[in-house]
Amino acid sequence: MLSKATVKYIQSLQHKKFRDIEGCFIAEGPKLVPELLAAGDFACKNIYATPEWMLQQDETFLQNQGEKLIEIKDFELEKISGLTHANQVLAVFAKKEAGMSSTLHQKISLLLDDIQDPGNLGTIIRIADWFGITNIFCSAHCADMYNPKVVQSTMASLGRMHIHYCDVDAWAKAQTVPLYAATLHGAPLQEFGHLQEGIIVIGNESHGVRSSLLEVSKAQLTIPRQGEAESLNAAVATGIILYSLKF
Amino acid sequence: MLSKATVKYIQSLQHKKFRDIEGCFIAEGPKLVPELLAAGDFACKNIYATPEWMLQQDETFLQNQGEKLIEIKDFELEKISGLTHANQVLAVFAKKEAGMSSTLHQKISLLLDDIQDPGNLGTIIRIADWFGITNIFCSAHCADMYNPKVVQSTMASLGRMHIHYCDVDAWAKAQTVPLYAATLHGAPLQEFGHLQEGIIVIGNESHGVRSSLLEVSKAQLTIPRQGEAESLNAAVATGIILYSLKF
Repeated sequence: MLSKATVKYIQSLQHKKFRDIEGCFIAEGPKLVPELLAAGDFACKNIYATPEWMLQQDETFLQNQGEKLIEIKDFELEKISGLTHANQVLAVFAKKEAGMSSTLHQKISLLLDDIQDPGNLGTIIRIADWFGITNIFCSAHCADMYNPKVVQSTMASLGRMHIHYCDVDAWAKAQTVPLYAATLHGAPLQEFGHLQEGIIVIGNESHGVRSSLLEVSKAQLTIPRQGEAESLNAAVATGIILYSLKF
Repeated sequence: MLSKATVKYIQSLQHKKFRDIEGCFIAEGPKLVPELLAAGDFACKNIYATPEWMLQQDETFLQNQGEKLIEIKDFELEKISGLTHANQVLAVFAKKEAGMSSTLHQKISLLLDDIQDPGNLGTIIRIADWFGITNIFCSAHCADMYNPKVVQSTMASLGRMHIHYCDVDAWAKAQTVPLYAATLHGAPLQEFGHLQEGIIVIGNESHGVRSSLLEVSKAQLTIPRQGEAESLNAAVATGIILYSLKF
């Protein structure tokens, strides 16, 4: 039987404030939890699982989890789950140390300027993982990478990414690699060919890239338009830009 | 004062069954409603607006709406709104005649095979409108183009599109223009260069393109991967493919 304190603790992790205080986040479901456990990018604190889930697991695997693994009833899972339909298992993982690794491990990286929708952030993380980009720098007002919506949508991609939250203005000024900002009034994307190295700046869903970042950018790149739509979704734009600059 | 019957009628339009019976759909908010009215693609049946919204409108515009325009109180708008935060105005529009215009007005068009998430369908419609593609053919199990989530996310793009729901197998077989299916195991997208004419087939979020459509496709095209993510979001993939084939 889960204690009231445990239920309250897990429920609190739906909120960034408590994720920051506790240094933990939650992941749910029979696909995501084993994927994160297998990847090993995040230390697992606890696994809360229903008998249905336990039955499907390998005996050795269950034993290896030791005291971290706690069997709970369906109604208990419903209490701690943030999903509309609670699904067999919920795990609490430790966040990775943010560190201030401001070095670029790769030639192309992303700088997200106030991407506020967790769905967009999650989709962008998956796109980056698809194109082999592992460094994402986020402004302080970007959605939280440990928001449950981000965690559920990115699956194991989340662990493979190096995601740094920083003061983007100070950070951008310190870079020697050129910045390329995605805007609606820049040079046509296809003219940039294959980019050798660069930091691609993706702006806020409503306001685009802030002017201070435009000022320090080497160029503005624009996805050519033939129709009439006012704008493209930020994640879709990221996908098109990375494809174009890499292939 | 709105009658109970009117409230019930408008609420019923949240559901496809009643949208089909009534031939109507709803659009909400001070940005979308005027945009759809100005574009004129859909006949407006009624506008339910709060005094706040009325005050911001041009006098002639308001007079031109005649009896269609009905002033309501905030609490009435909340009753009929499908949004979390009701927003000044809600309008009921007539759906366009679907017709069986199976002709292709353009050289490149989209065939959506069971895209089930309204968010994805809405994003794909905006992408198509960005790239100047106006014909979208949808399988019967695609999300409804008049689903409120689709309507709210596509803005005026919805009216500019020719969206046809059809038996895709029969329809695909009748085409003389070649089909190109987006899959995970086809030829690299960049090898296709600029496509002169073709129907791009985008598959279901979980199951991809159905085998019967793969069989009648001229080729399968795949977005090259350099990282480890299992898949790309269907709308993101559509954006990358259209960009690559058009520029």
